[in-house]
Amino acid sequence: MPDQARTLAQVSEGALLAEIFPLFAGGPGMPVGPGDDAAVLATGSRTVATTDTMVRGRDWVDEWSSGADVAAKALTQNLADVAAMGGRPTAVLVALMADPAVSVDWVLDFARELGARAAEAGVAVAGGDLSSAPTGVLAVAVTALGELPGTAVLRSGARPGDVVAVCGTLGRSAAGLELLRSGTGAGAVAADCVAHHLRPTTPLSAGPQAAASGATAMLDVSDGLLRDGSRLAAASGVRLALDSALLAPDVDVLREVVGDGALECVLAGGEEHSLLATFRGELPAGWRALGRVDEGEGVTLDGEPQQPRGWDHFAG
Amino acid sequence: MPDQARTLAQVSEGALLAEIFPLFAGGPGMPVGPGDDAAVLATGSRTVATTDTMVRGRDWVDEWSSGADVAAKALTQNLADVAAMGGRPTAVLVALMADPAVSVDWVLDFARELGARAAEAGVAVAGGDLSSAPTGVLAVAVTALGELPGTAVLRSGARPGDVVAVCGTLGRSAAGLELLRSGTGAGAVAADCVAHHLRPTTPLSAGPQAAASGATAMLDVSDGLLRDGSRLAAASGVRLALDSALLAPDVDVLREVVGDGALECVLAGGEEHSLLATFRGELPAGWRALGRVDEGEGVTLDGEPQQPRGWDHFAG
Repeated sequence: MPDQARTLAQVSEGALLAEIFPLFAGGPGMPVGPGDDAAVLATGSRTVATTDTMVRGRDWVDEWSSGADVAAKALTQNLADVAAMGGRPTAVLVALMADPAVSVDWVLDFARELGARAAEAGVAVAGGDLSSAPTGVLAVAVTALGELPGTAVLRSGARPGDVVAVCGTLGRSAAGLELLRSGTGAGAVAADCVAHHLRPTTPLSAGPQAAASGATAMLDVSDGLLRDGSRLAAASGVRLALDSALLAPDVDVLREVVGDGALECVLAGGEEHSLLATFRGELPAGWRALGRVDEGEGVTLDGEPQQPRGWDHFAG
Repeated sequence: MPDQARTLAQVSEGALLAEIFPLFAGGPGMPVGPGDDAAVLATGSRTVATTDTMVRGRDWVDEWSSGADVAAKALTQNLADVAAMGGRPTAVLVALMADPAVSVDWVLDFARELGARAAEAGVAVAGGDLSSAPTGVLAVAVTALGELPGTAVLRSGARPGDVVAVCGTLGRSAAGLELLRSGTGAGAVAADCVAHHLRPTTPLSAGPQAAASGATAMLDVSDGLLRDGSRLAAASGVRLALDSALLAPDVDVLREVVGDGALECVLAGGEEHSLLATFRGELPAGWRALGRVDEGEGVTLDGEPQQPRGWDHFAG
């Protein structure tokens, strides 16, 4: 029987774990790795902790995303949250809930990519859980831990006069999703957008660097610039005044692949995982201004109030 | 419209989180709580980390278990893993994946019990994730973190001559499940078994105490005495020789509610979350001997090799 045909129902949990554990690197930061009741991690005096999930049919469809793609996206979502606190990610734990009819290959493809990307980022895979689920269900919950080299950068520290800035791109993931949906798109920009939608990256080291450079507030763009920006604005009790001239480079590059939808991708596109922050002084290298912090509330574009559209998980 | 009728589809993620966060206690161990990109926890030099999931239709059915029951069980499963390393749990993160048709009441019932039990155990709820899921899906992934006051107690340290011991009961959860299935059972023992199946507890402080008393190996009984015992035996390269006379008290008490099935409940019943450990010297208070560690492999009962039956998540 070809390997492709093996399903989770045909292997024991122990046999599957024996195939998976070697895919995860250990290291000095993890005195006890996966396989016991719990892992033991070397930690500093403050640990950053966050969790994020992906559910098949909601956060991905198998037609577009492989197990490796899901691993890459789930990892980035969580590591971006650690970076957005000014933290350096150190470890992840992964829970997989799967219909026993899911192929072993999907799980190994997922685990292989997770292990490789975690190792590349210097992050230990500290264990996880395999759980069977009803027909059709496939879901992944990742928890990421990190250390804080300096001060935690919250969402609430932005003050009028600060500069609003981004590290990374805007709208690429949303444009990639649009291209996948329409089945159109050719060329380097289209390929880049699709790649960023399927396997987003986040500027990991920019988080602690921003913290060291005095960032006053920070988060990652996971649900869209307007929605995440409005969260930062609300937490800080300020208004973010965005300037369309400063967004033009992002819009222009996307116009060639999604036409008039480019601005909306930039404003409302989620799953981008760039870092959005506010700074009082000069911007660190790699960051570019998008506007300024004013008194008031919400997010404006060229002075016009914007609805905080973007992704809401349970919206009807 | 009565509150009962509200579903997740009818509330925004932000509004739901605003109802949930006040249910979770903070504390000095958590300088930054839920609501930002990540929480910040005060940690020692070594952090224990583990994750475990519950999926509706596999790990519980709504007919028997409320949201509060699921919270209690999910919490105990994870805290038991921390205790079984010799750790003291400090924080949990919770990811909820839910069909938008799930009622808001279920989620609040879950969150309220989670918050109350976590507070009782001195454990911070450090955040989580709410994710929508396809029709019918409801799943919970909990990650627990803890500190290690002493040495981590692994599964691999048992040596011939050690005493095998348990802290807590055996077979109650399995007997409770049997009673729920058969719709029978009356009296205090039956009620206790059903309660332990729906809302299991774990002797949390016994974990670090066992570590301080020189436990050589430890785990919690989550998949059954034989299956978990065989894991400890395999990791340590030894045989666990159980003595039926020492199991008799557990069997006798269950016989009145499940008759001849009592021994099987004690040997193979999962979700008990008592602690199973091996000791070289005297047993600490609260522990009782079940047998001894011999040279060899596997688990025996009165010298007879036992199949490591019990729960395997993906077994067909």
